[in-house]
Amino acid sequence: MLEQLKKTVYEANMELPKRNLVTYTWGNVSGIDREKGLIVIKPSGVAYEDLTPEKLVVLDLDNNIVEGDLNPSSDTKTHVELYKAFPTLGGIVHTHSPNAVAWAQAHEDIPCFGTTHADYFYGCVPCTRDLTDEELEDYERNTGKVIIEEFAKRGIDPEAVQAVICASHGPFTWGKTPAKAVENAVVLEEVAKMARYTRQIKPFAMSAPQRIQDKHYFRKHGANAYYGQK
Amino acid sequence: MLEQLKKTVYEANMELPKRNLVTYTWGNVSGIDREKGLIVIKPSGVAYEDLTPEKLVVLDLDNNIVEGDLNPSSDTKTHVELYKAFPTLGGIVHTHSPNAVAWAQAHEDIPCFGTTHADYFYGCVPCTRDLTDEELEDYERNTGKVIIEEFAKRGIDPEAVQAVICASHGPFTWGKTPAKAVENAVVLEEVAKMARYTRQIKPFAMSAPQRIQDKHYFRKHGANAYYGQK
Amino acid sequence: MLEQLKKTVYEANMELPKRNLVTYTWGNVSGIDREKGLIVIKPSGVAYEDLTPEKLVVLDLDNNIVEGDLNPSSDTKTHVELYKAFPTLGGIVHTHSPNAVAWAQAHEDIPCFGTTHADYFYGCVPCTRDLTDEELEDYERNTGKVIIEEFAKRGIDPEAVQAVICASHGPFTWGKTPAKAVENAVVLEEVAKMARYTRQIKPFAMSAPQRIQDKHYFRKHGANAYYGQK
Amino acid sequence: MLEQLKKTVYEANMELPKRNLVTYTWGNVSGIDREKGLIVIKPSGVAYEDLTPEKLVVLDLDNNIVEGDLNPSSDTKTHVELYKAFPTLGGIVHTHSPNAVAWAQAHEDIPCFGTTHADYFYGCVPCTRDLTDEELEDYERNTGKVIIEEFAKRGIDPEAVQAVICASHGPFTWGKTPAKAVENAVVLEEVAKMARYTRQIKPFAMSAPQRIQDKHYFRKHGANAYYGQK
Repeated sequence: MLEQLKKTVYEANMELPKRNLVTYTWGNVSGIDREKGLIVIKPSGVAYEDLTPEKLVVLDLDNNIVEGDLNPSSDTKTHVELYKAFPTLGGIVHTHSPNAVAWAQAHEDIPCFGTTHADYFYGCVPCTRDLTDEELEDYERNTGKVIIEEFAKRGIDPEAVQAVICASHGPFTWGKTPAKAVENAVVLEEVAKMARYTRQIKPFAMSAPQRIQDKHYFRKHGANAYYGQK
Repeated sequence: MLEQLKKTVYEANMELPKRNLVTYTWGNVSGIDREKGLIVIKPSGVAYEDLTPEKLVVLDLDNNIVEGDLNPSSDTKTHVELYKAFPTLGGIVHTHSPNAVAWAQAHEDIPCFGTTHADYFYGCVPCTRDLTDEELEDYERNTGKVIIEEFAKRGIDPEAVQAVICASHGPFTWGKTPAKAVENAVVLEEVAKMARYTRQIKPFAMSAPQRIQDKHYFRKHGANAYYGQK
Repeated sequence: MLEQLKKTVYEANMELPKRNLVTYTWGNVSGIDREKGLIVIKPSGVAYEDLTPEKLVVLDLDNNIVEGDLNPSSDTKTHVELYKAFPTLGGIVHTHSPNAVAWAQAHEDIPCFGTTHADYFYGCVPCTRDLTDEELEDYERNTGKVIIEEFAKRGIDPEAVQAVICASHGPFTWGKTPAKAVENAVVLEEVAKMARYTRQIKPFAMSAPQRIQDKHYFRKHGANAYYGQK
Repeated sequence: MLEQLKKTVYEANMELPKRNLVTYTWGNVSGIDREKGLIVIKPSGVAYEDLTPEKLVVLDLDNNIVEGDLNPSSDTKTHVELYKAFPTLGGIVHTHSPNAVAWAQAHEDIPCFGTTHADYFYGCVPCTRDLTDEELEDYERNTGKVIIEEFAKRGIDPEAVQAVICASHGPFTWGKTPAKAVENAVVLEEVAKMARYTRQIKPFAMSAPQRIQDKHYFRKHGANAYYGQK
């Protein structure tokens, strides 16, 4: 079942090592079929070189395995929470890419220092709070809930900022498709690196002026976008 | 038309991913035929692996498309302004190479800390000011105008410093040919990296003595140059 | 003799250059046959491209060469001390991977800033003290003894932290098998890099909350682990 | 003439791009035939992919070209001065490798923070002073003289420290053969990187204890060395 989605999710997973975003099995991609209410996700702890579309796991939105012989990614419940809360998501990616992780370990938002960032993410990429002792009892589900809380609390639109960093942990990114979610993971790591370099050069560097963030973001997004081909 | 220039501009564009200067489509190269008053530039948002010489766009210096089915690079008007103001330019490059971007995001000139820099650029590589709200209405054209203003205000010869970093944004480089403009983009990223390392080792490092900057620059440029073969 | 162990140790050694952990011959892997009380180790100063399973050296736990025409790694006595003190070790790795070396040269423990670290190492990766003048007379043996002393003094279980950094020197890692010891060397370098980035972003960054370190470590280790496949 | 030396010098030159030590033509290797008093060196500004043994230039120690149609490296006089002052040198390398350059641009010696450094260089790698206005008139020759002055002033044996960084410029390394000089260039860049990382982690990090520097240096050098094979 879901042959086409499996192929898409498989290819998106294989893009992670190709783009140098993962060491060993430190990453996973999922995709969703909104009509059927089913998600496809990487199995847990399987090496990328051993991955095939057939090994992907199919689950419903209550975390029941519908198809597949392997355990799904240990982060599955986080994916499910995000799919349920953010209805436009078609794919989700989790990695431990080092520069995004470093900002998460520093417990700081990734500031929007310039247009490379503003072309993709509208405003800073938020860093969540750490989970409480109680929340750790249902860790992966609550990781999702804390992301959702952070976006709600700050009034961030998950369409406008398709990325988050979880405190002490690392990044999740998403998009309309699994491929777009991977693209956002690549870009997030690149802008996290540039932001780290910027702070090294100038420890008290400030965000780019809001007017420039607006200009670049809306050059590529929304009704008046004019970047690229029609 | 302009088959030879298209080939040259195509090859210069393809050098960007080969030299690791671009992620996805974050860069573009143009070239100019001064006699005909026409420029050739990369189309907007087209992946490098899909690029062919035929897909390049030909424009006149009033930004009218003369040949080509695709939209030209969104940065085209910046290129055009520079070609009009700096008459010796034969090619222009824009990238988001991470170290040059970091200095631009820090709103600081790239200091000439040593001979690697002085061999190519005479003095610091200037960082422009941010554009005003009004200027953002014609963003790409005014990006060019602000570069030209910066060189005029400081009295910098665009032949002696074939590079600039635009505040909150990133680098533009140029040269007598598109290939030379790409070489300058490679060198700019390398010296931006070395300058970042230098500042990390010694936060208040100073520029190289002017006499040493002069020696190295004029060893490679001008009537008394003696580097390389005749 | 020990053909299977030699093959395993050979393959583990060859993984070091493949994973970019060594420059020239700056690394070595050993494995042990606990029943026979024999270890197999890389010969000293032999280039990886010239290494074959036949060139590996077999020694007993009194450092007597049992088989092999070449000198064993100059670090052999360190390996032997660790095998004698830590009875569950099946393989040991030494490298000069640059980020782990940098923390060792800074004489600082690698803090557990996040889950990437906590997934593998329970708490900080300890940095030993420098050896005394007297200890340098039997340098390699005492390097081992100082590691053992550090773990004893701090009450660290070598199963829970399968890595150490030796002051002014660099890392040793271990595991149930030579392959697992290499995996730990790869992970140590990666988390040392992430920790360096974190400190650059936030010079006084603190360790991840203990409850999160616990959660991630025990998600992958011990009776209640649920990461990966059964 | 000098076919064997040309082959050796050619191969040593080609090792520089292979080891990622040079961008474009920013490096050169020479070798000397002490009996004949002739040196072989890379021609100036020739791309590595176009280099052949036949293109190398042969000079005597008065800088007269004895064979070759191309201009020798612009740094030739520096090489010649070093060969004349340091009689055991068989090969010399110059690069602009970025971490060594950064220390040179910071006008700081590369401290011996640990054993990776001490295994190759006995004590810090010295940084020269900047050349005076007068010295710049015979720039390349005086670059050599200032290196020699620095070693003399500090009483450093060029056998014990086969590397130097020239202020505002970059590294020169040497060795008994051109291949050994290249190895030292690789190692210098690696320890310069590790030293930069160390200083980032701990801005006031101190050199490794002298006793440990001694131990490691003499483990690999001199009558009592025991590293590697006989």
